[in-house]
Amino acid sequence: MYKRVRVKQALASGPETALEVRGWARTVRCGKEVAFIALNDGSCFGSLQVVAGPSLANFDEICRLGTGSAIAVRGRVVPSPAAGQAVELAAEEVRVIGPSDDSYPLQKKRHTMEYLRTIAHLRPRTNTFGAVFRVRSSLAQAIHRFFSEHGFLYVHTPIITGNDCEGAGELFRVTTLPLDKPPLVGGRVDYSADFFGQATGLTVSGQLEGELYALAFSDIYTFGPTFRAENSNTSRHAAEFWMIEPEMAFADLQDDARLAEEFFRYLCRHVLDECHDDLAFFNDHIDKGLIERVRQVADSSFAMMEYTEAIEQLKKAPISFSFPVEWGLDLQSEHERYLTEQVVKGPVFIVNYPKEIKAFYMRRNNDNRTVAAMDLLVPKVGEIIGGSQREERLDLLEARMAEAGIDPTGLWWYLDSRRWGSCPHAGFGLGFERLLMYLTGMENIRDVIPFPRTPRHAEF
Amino acid sequence: MYKRVRVKQALASGPETALEVRGWARTVRCGKEVAFIALNDGSCFGSLQVVAGPSLANFDEICRLGTGSAIAVRGRVVPSPAAGQAVELAAEEVRVIGPSDDSYPLQKKRHTMEYLRTIAHLRPRTNTFGAVFRVRSSLAQAIHRFFSEHGFLYVHTPIITGNDCEGAGELFRVTTLPLDKPPLVGGRVDYSADFFGQATGLTVSGQLEGELYALAFSDIYTFGPTFRAENSNTSRHAAEFWMIEPEMAFADLQDDARLAEEFFRYLCRHVLDECHDDLAFFNDHIDKGLIERVRQVADSSFAMMEYTEAIEQLKKAPISFSFPVEWGLDLQSEHERYLTEQVVKGPVFIVNYPKEIKAFYMRRNNDNRTVAAMDLLVPKVGEIIGGSQREERLDLLEARMAEAGIDPTGLWWYLDSRRWGSCPHAGFGLGFERLLMYLTGMENIRDVIPFPRTPRHAEF
Repeated sequence: MYKRVRVKQALASGPETALEVRGWARTVRCGKEVAFIALNDGSCFGSLQVVAGPSLANFDEICRLGTGSAIAVRGRVVPSPAAGQAVELAAEEVRVIGPSDDSYPLQKKRHTMEYLRTIAHLRPRTNTFGAVFRVRSSLAQAIHRFFSEHGFLYVHTPIITGNDCEGAGELFRVTTLPLDKPPLVGGRVDYSADFFGQATGLTVSGQLEGELYALAFSDIYTFGPTFRAENSNTSRHAAEFWMIEPEMAFADLQDDARLAEEFFRYLCRHVLDECHDDLAFFNDHIDKGLIERVRQVADSSFAMMEYTEAIEQLKKAPISFSFPVEWGLDLQSEHERYLTEQVVKGPVFIVNYPKEIKAFYMRRNNDNRTVAAMDLLVPKVGEIIGGSQREERLDLLEARMAEAGIDPTGLWWYLDSRRWGSCPHAGFGLGFERLLMYLTGMENIRDVIPFPRTPRHAEF
Repeated sequence: MYKRVRVKQALASGPETALEVRGWARTVRCGKEVAFIALNDGSCFGSLQVVAGPSLANFDEICRLGTGSAIAVRGRVVPSPAAGQAVELAAEEVRVIGPSDDSYPLQKKRHTMEYLRTIAHLRPRTNTFGAVFRVRSSLAQAIHRFFSEHGFLYVHTPIITGNDCEGAGELFRVTTLPLDKPPLVGGRVDYSADFFGQATGLTVSGQLEGELYALAFSDIYTFGPTFRAENSNTSRHAAEFWMIEPEMAFADLQDDARLAEEFFRYLCRHVLDECHDDLAFFNDHIDKGLIERVRQVADSSFAMMEYTEAIEQLKKAPISFSFPVEWGLDLQSEHERYLTEQVVKGPVFIVNYPKEIKAFYMRRNNDNRTVAAMDLLVPKVGEIIGGSQREERLDLLEARMAEAGIDPTGLWWYLDSRRWGSCPHAGFGLGFERLLMYLTGMENIRDVIPFPRTPRHAEF
């Protein structure tokens, strides 16, 4: 008779529906004649107002309920006289499942983001983090839907990898060797005794393996965790983050840019359409102007500009930059933002960068000095997507690796993929947390990851 | 005029459609008057038969094409006189993009699974592995769809974790310490100098963190990589694999079993409906009877049996087991298979196990000697899903941890979740590769993971 539904469904129910809702009390206000409970179960931003009267046998118990208590409520949906809500729940039974008390860390008041990070196990129960992680989930599911609808194969590339493991660099080492007495041979670690019989670490990208699959399935994507052992404490760096990397066979840089634009606009459109309440909260409380900014990107055609022209634009800019501007140098954040915000006034792909500042696998252009790379720049953050057409010509790839000092021995399989049935192919990478920051206005990457990993932080 | 489509769409096109297809030649057969190319682009199991005549300017080049060559073909769809295909493509232009030759390791012949593992970068281009990884992708997307449709929040629980990192156990260590000269304090490794300022490893499960999110969003799931540094070389163990772990607040063991049954049957139904050609291949070439077995599970109601009754059934079994059967001992694979194959003759949940053989977080039953655990057993493999209702009572949880010798210090946040607004909750775990083996008939876990990680193997 009382059908159990989620708060989201209860709020959309017609009057007189009998239902049961279970969740946590966000606030409890009690008078002599009536008690109001704001009940939230995480299914949506809003809470359901539960109205309980003194005729309920446990009215006293209800009035003593602490913030954060878990309860189950049966009752009927009635029109609400209160502002901001169409309906409320007239309680016929309130069952206390798990009480709470004054020691609960999330009493009704403002907490700093810094404090909430120290209670990352409880912060999803707040308005802000409820909204963040609903959007995170919804976006992740939208990403899978986008690629599924476009016929892309989802590939799980490996997390533990033997690539790049000789130079330490930004790689986390993965090992089962006893760290207090590692086996040494001639003073060097004997990795032949390690679990994998070689040095291994955590992947920084699934691209190279993704390319192998694109050369069998045409269109593929990865969506998984990647790692950087970079000791930088900024608001934009985490040691563990999720990345999306599509790769298309028989595709060039123009195809790549087309996919990136369609994908990015799809995700903007998705949060506008499907995460409306959460986005309205961010727009009101976190980042005024968010919705308008996202809408503009969703509706705009992305521009494209050669790197060489970008340098010219920067040189004649009426402002002075902190970092030098010269053909051959990489663009800094200040340059990127100037280009997208002041020159183009919208999203822009910068394409064809000098080969010296880009990765070895990018395809050499006919001018012999640039490669078919692209960065998508968007207002407010600068670069958000980086991609390229890959070098599919074996001789040129080998030459470029030699030039860049990359040992081909460990990458024999990558070279093999250019040996038989090679073809033009292209792809890009999008950091999922950067995307989330962009679409929610949250300013610290620690606040869009459930349990962030940063230097000296691996709690929970 | 020639619209580029994938092979899958070409095979479903009506006669006279003008189109372009790009892919790889699986076989090339050439006569004086005509050349036949089986063209595959990974979009589906089948290849498109391309028919090229000597009127094409490069007919000689076409005839010399090696297996595995990348080509682009323009032409018109025509009804095919050949058996097993409705249409073929009458080529008007065949462009060779990336040639292949006799050194290509995948010449038309049978290769052993063992050999194909040594060329994991090329094996997705074979029939078998094309089918495996299409099903893998399709199932992964179906899993997200299932939970999305059921209102479950997708949570990315951390990969790098400080939990369980004191005892070495089956954990991979993650570190940036120099292994050749680790910092020692009193002969022990000084982890305070490590990247995270503590000992860290790769997660074995996201469940504990998942519970925290269920207590904020009601229904959540994780789907991500998990790790075991177990030195076992069996066909069912990998060091890195993907796991699905849903968790529901306000749910008991019965709710948990209901979800597991609905989920598992949904996935069986999905491969039958959506992966038909790939499944037909497995049924014909890998595991005769596969489709019938999957169909039976998809259509059956799952039984439920108490552990205590299971022991009685095993004791009176007319066969002798290798492992002892006694109340208090865990069930072995031979026992599980007997129960599901001989006693129940279908899927069965075994529930309420002795607490001593189950994990500390499982909920104590009123009999004081069992916990609300469940294992789903299915014919042919035995256990495929393991789950439980979690102990939500703080005092009982603490007592059980003390009993099991688990230090509560590092799990303060887990205990906290029982302190305020605690509620009954339950969940389960499903190993994605085990599921895939079950639904494809593939017998080695190394053959359902793109680049498997096992002892002494981390290639590619």
